[in-house]
Amino acid sequence: MEMSGEQSLAPRPHRPKSDKERKIGHRRVGEGGEITYKKIQTTTIMGSIQLGIQHTVGSLASKPRRDLLMMDFWELETISFPPEGSSMTPAHHYSEFKFKIYAPIAFRYFRDLFGIQPDDFMMSMCSAPLRELSNPGASGSIFYLTDDDEFIIKTVQHKEGEFLQKLLPGYYMNLNQNPRTLLPKFFGLYCYQCNSKNVRLVAMNNLLPSYVKMHLKYDLKGSTYKRKANKAERSKSSPTYKDLDFMEHHPNGLFLEAETYSALIKTIQRDCRVLESFKIMDYSLLVGIHNLDLAVKEKQEAAAKARSEGESDYEDAPEADQYMVQEREEQRTTALNRSR
Amino acid sequence: MEMSGEQSLAPRPHRPKSDKERKIGHRRVGEGGEITYKKIQTTTIMGSIQLGIQHTVGSLASKPRRDLLMMDFWELETISFPPEGSSMTPAHHYSEFKFKIYAPIAFRYFRDLFGIQPDDFMMSMCSAPLRELSNPGASGSIFYLTDDDEFIIKTVQHKEGEFLQKLLPGYYMNLNQNPRTLLPKFFGLYCYQCNSKNVRLVAMNNLLPSYVKMHLKYDLKGSTYKRKANKAERSKSSPTYKDLDFMEHHPNGLFLEAETYSALIKTIQRDCRVLESFKIMDYSLLVGIHNLDLAVKEKQEAAAKARSEGESDYEDAPEADQYMVQEREEQRTTALNRSR
Repeated sequence: MEMSGEQSLAPRPHRPKSDKERKIGHRRVGEGGEITYKKIQTTTIMGSIQLGIQHTVGSLASKPRRDLLMMDFWELETISFPPEGSSMTPAHHYSEFKFKIYAPIAFRYFRDLFGIQPDDFMMSMCSAPLRELSNPGASGSIFYLTDDDEFIIKTVQHKEGEFLQKLLPGYYMNLNQNPRTLLPKFFGLYCYQCNSKNVRLVAMNNLLPSYVKMHLKYDLKGSTYKRKANKAERSKSSPTYKDLDFMEHHPNGLFLEAETYSALIKTIQRDCRVLESFKIMDYSLLVGIHNLDLAVKEKQEAAAKARSEGESDYEDAPEADQYMVQEREEQRTTALNRSR
Repeated sequence: MEMSGEQSLAPRPHRPKSDKERKIGHRRVGEGGEITYKKIQTTTIMGSIQLGIQHTVGSLASKPRRDLLMMDFWELETISFPPEGSSMTPAHHYSEFKFKIYAPIAFRYFRDLFGIQPDDFMMSMCSAPLRELSNPGASGSIFYLTDDDEFIIKTVQHKEGEFLQKLLPGYYMNLNQNPRTLLPKFFGLYCYQCNSKNVRLVAMNNLLPSYVKMHLKYDLKGSTYKRKANKAERSKSSPTYKDLDFMEHHPNGLFLEAETYSALIKTIQRDCRVLESFKIMDYSLLVGIHNLDLAVKEKQEAAAKARSEGESDYEDAPEADQYMVQEREEQRTTALNRSR
């Protein structure tokens, strides 16, 4: 789901721009390949975010669980992180910054609903450096991925962040009534503040974690106008195709069990009603196809390769195995509203 | 629960007032005993409300159930009831009026949650004339009771009605998380409009339906300041006592099973947190005590009386019987946040 947000700022005309420096939105790639967002080094942002999240999840542990209240949606907590450390925060080697946590109790409630334990969340978020995804969206957002592939942290514009916060009560209602919802799972909304610059961030689930290989991926909008993946996308090892490609690849559509189909359609209808009620129209459905036949073949090939190289560990990739046991359809279809 | 509302209007000084006419708030009792609210005959209000509720419950039947959305809380439906009838509404012999229904889909959702079937709601509300309770609250509100004793319709001030509407999302959240809540059950919020006068009404559960006799009733605020039932109240056949009376009658408190006690206290704490979050402080706990020993005695006396009068039907009051089978404690205690 791509939420309607502020337009990205145009580059300032009076500033001489290097040919090598590429810029989309607030994201810049410098001559040496170093990436900045609002001119802050992305490594600084990543490290600081981790300190902030570690602090908030840790401090929530001392607040007993209780019913979520309306006012929890409007709460905002701010913590200062001086480099020398404080009674509340550790010393660090980044620039001084503030970390703002939107609706901490509400997001804890959501994480609980999604079955995310605080320890697991903290481990995923903070125990290893984040990775920046190399292909940013057209909006110039930066995507950070946790080392274990579970979570994505995405930069959002001011308006988009505000909008998301306003959405929270309705989001709560949808989760309660429609637990199978395919709308993105939001785990946190934060703002990293440094040198009077604000970087707003939303933590979400990673829709396509790498431990299940998707042989085909589609971003579907239900429109056929200009809905074809461009050359750059097609040349990727795992491109995300669009509506026209889908129609070409699957002229008869995808086969789903009757029960799966009706459950899926019902969920999509309910999700669309929620999006419509919030006047959100710029969203799409991300469909990932895991081809079981191909997966078996790939597994055999990998095993053969491992044997020829004298390694045997490869033979049993446990997650993939487990996965295929769970799914006995010919094609695995994950249909999720897109969140990037 | 008595919500903070507009103060009742003082009587206009320039109007000559009959000695016999008594007035509290908008409620007047005329010389002949006829009751008016905002100078509209209460019988007219009662009949018109019934037409309005009948219409709204009926028309909702054609709208399929769906997930409740945030925007449903702000919906307002208005229906005109001309005396000659229309394509939508029946003819009637009251003055022309309009009936406004606040958040119809949201209240249907609440009624569903409370297990109130549409047919039952309509039957209770509309199949027999409403009765007006003779003892209005200090606020000058009028209370209408359905013939089967299940529901109460209470007039509320403009501000109180607005406040209740604003509360609805938080009310939804509480019902979802805390289904044992003792807060009032709201089934509908309406406005009857006639001659440019507005009578706002809220439909609620009747906390103390007559089919379970409460031998003692208390309205508890947790304060001892002036918390003694006055003479007029004490002289009633079934008075509602207050905190000081409770302490006098039950110096050792009430005995509850450990499990019942802890569940009750937990529920009250959760309810208080919700009320606090909405800055509501003027509420009290209504406690009704059904004394099983006394009930058995009363039943025996009634049976003996029936025998001496040659009637035997009386012996088996089924509801009371069923009730006592369910409750094996010495005293039955219903603890509910007061709603009048």
